[in-house]
Amino acid sequence: MLTKKKIPQSTVWRLSQYLNCLSLLSSEKCREISSHELAERVGVKSTQIRQDFHYFGGFGQPGCRYNVGQLIGELEAILGLDKPQNMIIVGAGNIGQALAHYDKFEPLGFRLKGIFDVNPRLFGLKIRGVGVRDVKELPRFVKDHHIRIGIITTPARVAQSVADLLVRIKIKGIWNFSPMNVTAPEGVSMVNENLSVGLMTLSHKIKGG
Amino acid sequence: MLTKKKIPQSTVWRLSQYLNCLSLLSSEKCREISSHELAERVGVKSTQIRQDFHYFGGFGQPGCRYNVGQLIGELEAILGLDKPQNMIIVGAGNIGQALAHYDKFEPLGFRLKGIFDVNPRLFGLKIRGVGVRDVKELPRFVKDHHIRIGIITTPARVAQSVADLLVRIKIKGIWNFSPMNVTAPEGVSMVNENLSVGLMTLSHKIKGG
Repeated sequence: MLTKKKIPQSTVWRLSQYLNCLSLLSSEKCREISSHELAERVGVKSTQIRQDFHYFGGFGQPGCRYNVGQLIGELEAILGLDKPQNMIIVGAGNIGQALAHYDKFEPLGFRLKGIFDVNPRLFGLKIRGVGVRDVKELPRFVKDHHIRIGIITTPARVAQSVADLLVRIKIKGIWNFSPMNVTAPEGVSMVNENLSVGLMTLSHKIKGG
Repeated sequence: MLTKKKIPQSTVWRLSQYLNCLSLLSSEKCREISSHELAERVGVKSTQIRQDFHYFGGFGQPGCRYNVGQLIGELEAILGLDKPQNMIIVGAGNIGQALAHYDKFEPLGFRLKGIFDVNPRLFGLKIRGVGVRDVKELPRFVKDHHIRIGIITTPARVAQSVADLLVRIKIKGIWNFSPMNVTAPEGVSMVNENLSVGLMTLSHKIKGG
């Protein structure tokens, strides 16, 4: 049962981690797990897990075992992964091509439909069956293919104008990889990816944290 | 003053977010900020921020204003960013090249010293002044250049063997981008980057979270 309570960003981050871990367990035919075991695998306290699970209803007794499949279903629903979502990439440079090659998004229901660039030499290049097109075709394409998510992998200097275009053509969410914070008006969801965070986490661990 | 208390992973994640935000504020010549303002910018509760700041000593009274420069210093110390660290990339494919082009790591003290691959056609390629070398040179190079951090951007099938090599040549920390969880023995720090987490966060926001 989903509650209407707003979930803080760092809880969403942990829920994503739990889902990754549980999906791996499920592929290894594991059917049940305790909050203690899950905590150990993800690297959080088991009290934290039980607290996080309160966001979606009646779980959370210490010591009880969870059904892995059911937990995956609950987490997918809360993270909006219960329906497939179409997406495009704008910017066919290194990061754009790397994301197009990445095959871990599809099992979560994210379907890459198109890649766009301004460089004519890249037009027609295919990555895992998805072609690179002229960015001029973007508005029509987004409408015709029911695109909900736009991933920005352009240089920093054009990132905001690409975001503005995506907002105008009524995209629902923007995932920005350009090394510049991009803003969107209310009604369009926005995640500015910051690659430095992983490196800072590693640095903290090396320090003995 | 640093405490010895172990910091949970999601707190480290938030501390990194605070640092990013404060660095941006500092570049805009902002000198002071309240926990409420910082909370709003980062997207967490201000009670959460005050709780997180308890990890490094005597901050945290509601309503008080923080000195931005001092906070940055405290966060850098806790995240191990107070000394420069040399790093290498193993795998000069799309993600490897994209990370080598990324210029937000250096201001945090992370210095890319070398890129390694098995493909002779890539040897000699330079990215922002850093050359691609034969992976056979890796052990010698790591020793000669005091490399602490190894970034794995190889295909999944060789990621664990690259990690094992990095462990043998006494690297301190591994940041793994290959789409496979890699393990390292105790004493070597490990961060498995999962790009899906950003997309799941976006999906949750689109859903209205």
